[in-house]
Amino acid sequence: MKALFIGGIKSGKSKNAEDFTIKHANKKPYYLATTEFIDDEIAKKIELHKLQREDNFITIEEALNLSEKIKECNEIVLVECLSMWINNMLYHEKSHEEIFYEIDKILSLENSIVFVLNDVGSGIIPENKLAREFIDLSGIIAQKIASKCDEVYHTIAGISTKIK
Amino acid sequence: MKALFIGGIKSGKSKNAEDFTIKHANKKPYYLATTEFIDDEIAKKIELHKLQREDNFITIEEALNLSEKIKECNEIVLVECLSMWINNMLYHEKSHEEIFYEIDKILSLENSIVFVLNDVGSGIIPENKLAREFIDLSGIIAQKIASKCDEVYHTIAGISTKIK
Amino acid sequence: MKALFIGGIKSGKSKNAEDFTIKHANKKPYYLATTEFIDDEIAKKIELHKLQREDNFITIEEALNLSEKIKECNEIVLVECLSMWINNMLYHEKSHEEIFYEIDKILSLENSIVFVLNDVGSGIIPENKLAREFIDLSGIIAQKIASKCDEVYHTIAGISTKIK
Repeated sequence: MKALFIGGIKSGKSKNAEDFTIKHANKKPYYLATTEFIDDEIAKKIELHKLQREDNFITIEEALNLSEKIKECNEIVLVECLSMWINNMLYHEKSHEEIFYEIDKILSLENSIVFVLNDVGSGIIPENKLAREFIDLSGIIAQKIASKCDEVYHTIAGISTKIK
Repeated sequence: MKALFIGGIKSGKSKNAEDFTIKHANKKPYYLATTEFIDDEIAKKIELHKLQREDNFITIEEALNLSEKIKECNEIVLVECLSMWINNMLYHEKSHEEIFYEIDKILSLENSIVFVLNDVGSGIIPENKLAREFIDLSGIIAQKIASKCDEVYHTIAGISTKIK
Repeated sequence: MKALFIGGIKSGKSKNAEDFTIKHANKKPYYLATTEFIDDEIAKKIELHKLQREDNFITIEEALNLSEKIKECNEIVLVECLSMWINNMLYHEKSHEEIFYEIDKILSLENSIVFVLNDVGSGIIPENKLAREFIDLSGIIAQKIASKCDEVYHTIAGISTKIK
């Protein structure tokens, strides 16, 4: 079983994806944190997320090679979040091909996976070229993942609507 | 009865929220205008909104203490719009706690209220720290309100889809 | 029959609009390309789009006078995309009135038309005045078109959800 939760910033997608993951787990599920770069602002968000998770998850961390890490898990894995992972891959100068290859590897795994992804494409097209590159990558990855997922949810105002 | 209309800029959410409010009123409903700061661009929009409203509403104005104003109303109130109110509160250096406290006060009222809020979180994360703060606040408030509303509508291209 | 596909950047709206158009055509449908200004980045996108289309469409090109071009077609026309057309009209210093007039002309045609439009209004309000003007125009046009369409689809992560 694979599912995608997509939504804007502070839409509530993470909380709903966590609830969904817990509901679909038989024993304690995995929380795969992809965060690599931490400034004060992000550190605060992580702390808040940890509090919200309480002890419902086994937290594991990986910034780049997600498929290797997921393969080792014997219960459903929540990937939080793919947007940060795309960031990490670009920072480490991975090519789009390498990024798509890793996505395909993840999607070919037998594991149950819940993906969380920011919807970043519904504002004005930014002048910044890197921002446009990120939006394009993010959109293509969203399409790739959604096409392989059993369920896809769009979240706004804390409400996740099933769109697939 | 409480309802939320959320949607992007010029999505048609205001018009649909007005129609919804009128439909749910027994006598003339209230229009709570939250606009405080007026430049030419905003003045034009207000004028246009007033024309669209015609004389279907009793217009009242309040930039900050919405709960006090709403409490005095004896018919359904359309709050237009919460995004402007968040702006006002930040401009007057209210803390996030004060903002959330006021939101909780509004939500605890017995009044029937229709909220209008901009969806601002589905673009690229902005570099501007204040813009990020606004997006986060706006998203948290959207979640708080939606969780207490009987009905929530997402508007795009003038079409309001019920998501709760 | 008229239909609108609206969605963010790289949401998959174009691909789904193409499939929809082909499905609703009896013989080879028209692809009305509105692109006028071409830099390397756009040229690449056009090339990719052409590959995706294969030879399923008769491609015609027009940057400004869409209604004239559409009127000549005797099969369903896919307009790809209206956002680029709005850009062209603004670049050629057409007034909002002229833009709305052309939209009304298009909508009054008997032809079957599938419109593709970027959702650009769900991010933070940009400081750039031209960007705000574009968002407002785009939103009003989305509403105008959606109100006359038989079917409207919102696309995210490659999934087009029927909202009308």
